[in-house]
Amino acid sequence: MKIITLLTDFGSFYPAQIKGVILSRLKDKEVTFVDIAHDIPPQDVRAGAFALLSSARYFPSGTIHIAVVDPGVGAGRLGLVVESGAQLFVGPDNGLLLPAAQSLGSPQAYKIARKFEASSTFHGRDVFAPAAALLAAGEKPASLGPRVRPKTLSFGEPRWTDRGIEATVIYIDRFGNLILNMQKLPAFDLSLKGIKLKKVRTYGEARRIEPLITLGSHGFAEIAVNQGSAAEVFCLKAGDRIELEEI
Amino acid sequence: MKIITLLTDFGSFYPAQIKGVILSRLKDKEVTFVDIAHDIPPQDVRAGAFALLSSARYFPSGTIHIAVVDPGVGAGRLGLVVESGAQLFVGPDNGLLLPAAQSLGSPQAYKIARKFEASSTFHGRDVFAPAAALLAAGEKPASLGPRVRPKTLSFGEPRWTDRGIEATVIYIDRFGNLILNMQKLPAFDLSLKGIKLKKVRTYGEARRIEPLITLGSHGFAEIAVNQGSAAEVFCLKAGDRIELEEI
Amino acid sequence: MKIITLLTDFGSFYPAQIKGVILSRLKDKEVTFVDIAHDIPPQDVRAGAFALLSSARYFPSGTIHIAVVDPGVGAGRLGLVVESGAQLFVGPDNGLLLPAAQSLGSPQAYKIARKFEASSTFHGRDVFAPAAALLAAGEKPASLGPRVRPKTLSFGEPRWTDRGIEATVIYIDRFGNLILNMQKLPAFDLSLKGIKLKKVRTYGEARRIEPLITLGSHGFAEIAVNQGSAAEVFCLKAGDRIELEEI
Repeated sequence: MKIITLLTDFGSFYPAQIKGVILSRLKDKEVTFVDIAHDIPPQDVRAGAFALLSSARYFPSGTIHIAVVDPGVGAGRLGLVVESGAQLFVGPDNGLLLPAAQSLGSPQAYKIARKFEASSTFHGRDVFAPAAALLAAGEKPASLGPRVRPKTLSFGEPRWTDRGIEATVIYIDRFGNLILNMQKLPAFDLSLKGIKLKKVRTYGEARRIEPLITLGSHGFAEIAVNQGSAAEVFCLKAGDRIELEEI
Repeated sequence: MKIITLLTDFGSFYPAQIKGVILSRLKDKEVTFVDIAHDIPPQDVRAGAFALLSSARYFPSGTIHIAVVDPGVGAGRLGLVVESGAQLFVGPDNGLLLPAAQSLGSPQAYKIARKFEASSTFHGRDVFAPAAALLAAGEKPASLGPRVRPKTLSFGEPRWTDRGIEATVIYIDRFGNLILNMQKLPAFDLSLKGIKLKKVRTYGEARRIEPLITLGSHGFAEIAVNQGSAAEVFCLKAGDRIELEEI
Repeated sequence: MKIITLLTDFGSFYPAQIKGVILSRLKDKEVTFVDIAHDIPPQDVRAGAFALLSSARYFPSGTIHIAVVDPGVGAGRLGLVVESGAQLFVGPDNGLLLPAAQSLGSPQAYKIARKFEASSTFHGRDVFAPAAALLAAGEKPASLGPRVRPKTLSFGEPRWTDRGIEATVIYIDRFGNLILNMQKLPAFDLSLKGIKLKKVRTYGEARRIEPLITLGSHGFAEIAVNQGSAAEVFCLKAGDRIELEEI
């Protein structure tokens, strides 16, 4: 039984084609597909990298993750297999796979040099799916191509300012929670746009509609409005830089 | 082969973490996951309860349903396993599970007292997923904790008014159909906001764009606009109270 | 191991009911479900037919596709099983299944005459799901009912105009790419609404934000704005007719 996850910005029906190709190639071998997300904001590699980083650690050894958020498709970027912590990652060489792979151990990356019948626009289906099928059938990453040094991706670091901390919104989830590139909370209290953020360990400590900041279960700081949407209240979107003021 | 369904208001990538935890714990045991919905309106326990109630009856004995719509996470509410009609329900003690469990038989509820390594914000992954994995591996609900009396949830009852019937919109589906807390249709004809609703057994009996009322396949009254959106035409949203006038 | 795909315009929770019915009927037989799409624009049979046509060819022999986009439910249209190229299609007789079936071989269609316990509004769950379960269990399509001549569906043909080519937008994907009913690109250069479309083989050949036209991996012409949304830039929606001018 092989577990294969998928994370893309494709929305619907293209992910099913990836699954169809894998099922066609694996024949009687059993596969459990898990969709991590297909609603990554189009071509937002950083948001995709965050979702993969948050999720990969919960999967068992041997899991193969296919991730495709790929603004550079067709422009010569490499396709990669990355091995780390007994899991495998398959996708474009644009940094998408690296934070997750680094979180599990010391990644070893291989270029997908093997040729498949590839259309020119859809590497997810025509390159990454057959590569993942070979891995699921037991081939070693090294059999697909030579070791390479993969592109990395940084979520950036928050930086100190005169008045507090500047950070970046890397992801907005369905509740409108703002996930920041900040992996610990400072000792002092914080406000955003003049509104105090209650520092809490769990959402239950805040009153209804009270703005809060907490360290999310993914290890990143998260600004939320209890039972409301912080993205709406503070009028922010992924990629925005914000200043958290000390109060 | 264990069947495990998931129903949440999480949108994407958090449900995959629940699946990852279960697959990690069950190892070689085979699981078929079925996603019921992850687009329940954020923290709308009633809408989630309706979707679960509508769906659970179609699953075979032995199915485990994990449902998480949980505005009170971290505020001390219990986690439950509810057994009913040879199916199991795992989720928060806020009424979400009860209408579905009651529809299958006489529910018996157990508090999840067993301790897992729980982060403070994400019980879906850190409590309900490992609890479901234990159940899937054959443990009895009683092994997780003592019998408790679960919180119930009522969709409310429509009530008679001078001019007809007052009811509540409990769910709006993707077609803009309005699902009401009303489990039979009156003998007389009805209008909504001055517009007559054709009483039909099937959508095909209405003309294109004709407003209609019918008893949906889920057993609740449903107002629709044939090949249009009743939510748009009548400008209504989940939770709204409406008056259906006798004509 | 049976592979069953689902394609609907149902959004959430109704597709899970279809899966529940199939799992209940198949008992210990193993099924791999693949969701092709559940976000087809409501009742847009042509968009559903396009998504199914694009995807079916990637699945292995023996796959059963259930597709339901069904504005005529309850109005007497037939239910069909269509066999083609060693795959099976189950759904309404409104043309939805035909382009995909035709792309795989010479379709043979059978009316679903077998009676199931059918509610009046939800054939997906009450007719097509049990029919698919019988097929998955090994019954032949002919055992469900007699051969019939199925309704076909055409995406239409682009036509020559004084100034170029008139075509129809049949689908808009998540990136805002416009998929046209045009299966080859003309030799000359094209503009749309006065804006030149760069003719490319792959997206990587266009600059950022440059409008382009290409033959998509599905075999249809596709207008895109590299790393942007053509649907927004050109203000178009599915069903719109456009004129591509020769330049």
